[in-house]
Amino acid sequence: MGDQVSEQTTNRLSLYLRFVNHLDANGVRTVSSKVLAAQFDLNAALIRKDLSHFGALGVRGVGYVVKDLKQRLRQILGLERRLNVAIIGAGNLGFALADYPGFRQEGFRIVALFDSLRAKVGRQSRSGVRIHDIRQLKRVTRRERITIAVIAVPAAAAQMVANTVVQAGIKALLNFSPGALRVPPDVKLKSVDLTVSLESLSFYLARNDAGRST
Amino acid sequence: MGDQVSEQTTNRLSLYLRFVNHLDANGVRTVSSKVLAAQFDLNAALIRKDLSHFGALGVRGVGYVVKDLKQRLRQILGLERRLNVAIIGAGNLGFALADYPGFRQEGFRIVALFDSLRAKVGRQSRSGVRIHDIRQLKRVTRRERITIAVIAVPAAAAQMVANTVVQAGIKALLNFSPGALRVPPDVKLKSVDLTVSLESLSFYLARNDAGRST
Repeated sequence: MGDQVSEQTTNRLSLYLRFVNHLDANGVRTVSSKVLAAQFDLNAALIRKDLSHFGALGVRGVGYVVKDLKQRLRQILGLERRLNVAIIGAGNLGFALADYPGFRQEGFRIVALFDSLRAKVGRQSRSGVRIHDIRQLKRVTRRERITIAVIAVPAAAAQMVANTVVQAGIKALLNFSPGALRVPPDVKLKSVDLTVSLESLSFYLARNDAGRST
Repeated sequence: MGDQVSEQTTNRLSLYLRFVNHLDANGVRTVSSKVLAAQFDLNAALIRKDLSHFGALGVRGVGYVVKDLKQRLRQILGLERRLNVAIIGAGNLGFALADYPGFRQEGFRIVALFDSLRAKVGRQSRSGVRIHDIRQLKRVTRRERITIAVIAVPAAAAQMVANTVVQAGIKALLNFSPGALRVPPDVKLKSVDLTVSLESLSFYLARNDAGRST
């Protein structure tokens, strides 16, 4: 089963969880696939398929019990245990990610920043994440049980940093540097390309201008 | 036509463009839908459909001419004119975005940072983007022909900032703050939720651990 689950499906599960958290915080008890569909501009059948695939079953005429659905989504996404995350690169982006409030809410714990500049080592982010020497990555990874590394270094250094991360035994990488990285097949790499989001706005603006001129 | 194009389609067009740029920079002249499919883990028919929908037609046995495809994708995404972008919030995230090299490569021009803290006004990011007083947003927006605003402020301030941006006449918003924002129907809002990327890694790790224990 697991191997056939696409990136787009896990992304959708994350979005469902975000919305279900919001419903739960507002005291909503049940939610239908129709409401979920309207929220995400998807069709209800796809949502029912996504959820039933993982054993979350709605009740006809009632929908899903919000608290059950939340717990099931957290289980599916592996969020029931706390995951320890390291951020490589203590520049503006690294600090922004270290203090990003969304991570903590879902149980991710940013346990360390790393940098190669000795002048930065020993300092802390605003929320108290300490900067370590990148040369200590392997040791700190073991001690702090780090399982995910976030790469927030300039593009020119990204592949070298990725190699160091893999050598430290970390199997999941989130890359913010532009450009492709190579990792061994047993390591999961996910890249965030911020340009894609801007281009979808550009597409919208271009379409709108065309509309106005006709 | 335009109205039926989903967010997922425009995201894919962006990814195709990124790869086609890379091919062009490496002197590759033609590319088949098969090669594109392998690169993105999609099927070739979907890619041909995406591209033919916008009038980019491949030649049987040859594929697409890289330079033509690049130009067509840039046209579709509205990247042929330079788009001026403002970043609201001159914190770590705002500075990181102001200096993000990927934006410039695709023709986006970050023309201004804005903040409400007077002590920051007049300073510059490393790449030379100047910080303005948020109270000057409307005036600077007109002068600099800003069409996209990126919201990089704490969640508590995000809705107020979004309102200010809309009042300044900006029709496209990219939001990095966690939580939902409300904007009028003629304004396009796109939110980047960084937690989604981490959760897809968490899903992978949970699945892998389950695999090891069986």
